[in-house]
Amino acid sequence: QQQENTPTAQQDPLPSWNENNTKHAIITYVEEITDKNSGNFIPELDRIATFDNDGTLWSEQPIYFQLFFAMDRVKAMADEHPDWKNKQPFKAVLDNNRQELMKQGEKGILEIVMNTHAGMTTEEFEKEVKNWVATAEHPIKKKRYTELVYQPMLELLQYLRANGFKTFIVSGGGVDFMRPWVEEVYGIPRDQVVGSTIQVKYDYNNGKPVVRKLAEIDYIDDKDGKPECIHKYIGRKPVFAAGNSDGDLQMLRWADANPYKSFQLYVHHTDSTREWAYDRQSHIGQFDKGLDEAKEKNWTLVDMKNDWKVVYPFDK
Amino acid sequence: QQQENTPTAQQDPLPSWNENNTKHAIITYVEEITDKNSGNFIPELDRIATFDNDGTLWSEQPIYFQLFFAMDRVKAMADEHPDWKNKQPFKAVLDNNRQELMKQGEKGILEIVMNTHAGMTTEEFEKEVKNWVATAEHPIKKKRYTELVYQPMLELLQYLRANGFKTFIVSGGGVDFMRPWVEEVYGIPRDQVVGSTIQVKYDYNNGKPVVRKLAEIDYIDDKDGKPECIHKYIGRKPVFAAGNSDGDLQMLRWADANPYKSFQLYVHHTDSTREWAYDRQSHIGQFDKGLDEAKEKNWTLVDMKNDWKVVYPFDK
Ligand SMILES: [Ca+2]
Ligand SMILES: [Ca+2]
Repeated sequence: QQQENTPTAQQDPLPSWNENNTKHAIITYVEEITDKNSGNFIPELDRIATFDNDGTLWSEQPIYFQLFFAMDRVKAMADEHPDWKNKQPFKAVLDNNRQELMKQGEKGILEIVMNTHAGMTTEEFEKEVKNWVATAEHPIKKKRYTELVYQPMLELLQYLRANGFKTFIVSGGGVDFMRPWVEEVYGIPRDQVVGSTIQVKYDYNNGKPVVRKLAEIDYIDDKDGKPECIHKYIGRKPVFAAGNSDGDLQMLRWADANPYKSFQLYVHHTDSTREWAYDRQSHIGQFDKGLDEAKEKNWTLVDMKNDWKVVYPFDK
Repeated sequence: QQQENTPTAQQDPLPSWNENNTKHAIITYVEEITDKNSGNFIPELDRIATFDNDGTLWSEQPIYFQLFFAMDRVKAMADEHPDWKNKQPFKAVLDNNRQELMKQGEKGILEIVMNTHAGMTTEEFEKEVKNWVATAEHPIKKKRYTELVYQPMLELLQYLRANGFKTFIVSGGGVDFMRPWVEEVYGIPRDQVVGSTIQVKYDYNNGKPVVRKLAEIDYIDDKDGKPECIHKYIGRKPVFAAGNSDGDLQMLRWADANPYKSFQLYVHHTDSTREWAYDRQSHIGQFDKGLDEAKEKNWTLVDMKNDWKVVYPFDK
């Protein structure tokens, strides 16, 4: 957590952000809380920044990317499970019925993930995720999923770290699904990833210890679960929290309750051309109460269409 | 996690360690795995070091220090709970019956902690721990508990960090009991503390969000729980693991299974004069199977009496 690459006046730390209020609000905040002479100075250990993942750091349409992963697993294993043809949520996967699948939410994803991976060791699971990330293609964008991360948010993560922040992911997605690629893609170490978890069991396995995944949910890191997991895993209230949906509202409120001056950022999906436009009515990333509260409390709303020069790294 | 304070040839990174095999084994290992030209070089992100706390970083006799804390709480609350006089484990506390208490183990401690803290917010609990740590005195050593940390281990933590290791605590003790003081005492950030947990519940509380402690155990981070929690919280196998009892054996085996060259260190309590001497028969920190396996596998055994020049910082 050293201050390296401290931006000089000549360098723009957020080149993919338009010169709008949003960018200025971020930079003003960071400059203020890192200034020892400011009344709002925050010591480095307290500079905790938490980021939601789906819809905040990468896209989540037409369905959560982890669900594509889980669907691919179900299809690959379908022959061994003839009963899945008539059993939800597997039936929806085999029928390619995304509408039905979306209704299952993050719990449904975890259920599919659990059932397709129970008994697997954590190392086998990791190998599978890595292989999928390296080969699978987004059905609409025709890109690798990890290419569909937001360039402006990558710059924001880097900018915060360069200013002594410790950056964390706090996502409803499965932690084991994120860890294999977040270091390379976001520059966030594995242990700084908080997410939903499936129970695991250590097995000595004749002198070759393994940790196996069970078919039981441990914790859903969404809504109330976010501040609970932040307490459990990080042990300190964030001063900077970023999300995109009502599932992040509790996390943003938690940061807002920090005695230090805090920053709440909501990514509003307003760009139907370069990305997707959705908010109050969406099944994925519903943003309704959060949108109202952001306006009421003057939290920072990223207007994707107008605030971002480019969306994805390959657009640069 | 930058490499600062890199030790030069002139500086001794472990001045409180005698020039014995143990010290040389540690230094040889660190020099080898940080040398890019060595076949055993380990990239920085993989330099994960996990340390047990009780009996490994600080003393644990005559009973776990957290139990003294819990006992003080029980005594302070006894008037409100007349039934505790006849109910274990509270009766043992009120009778000052340590023998009985020790039998309860880490689960008993958590039970007392839970019952004396249920309903409290995490912030109230933190304040209480900080106050206790600042004022309570060890009944035999007549020192603050946080003065009873091992000077040679503080140097080891610092030496590893200076060589690009990320240092974690992985303890059977309660995580909320450790976090308030570990940063100052060990230089380990709160989010790098893994321990036993009590369930918590987020409460919006009329616009003042809090996280409250419940009277339910979430997870015991001991024995099999250690590699399970390492997977859950850190997401990467350690290359360096240190413990002092049979409760750490699974963690050391987990590090031993790392494809990178790993280091297993067991602190053997052999010093009845400066600290305490105990191993195979002890109720606290029983070290029996682990001692056999350490010898069988040539893991590094710290002989406290002969390997450490000083035990506590105040002995320097
Ligand atoms: Ca989201
Ligand atoms: Ca111990």
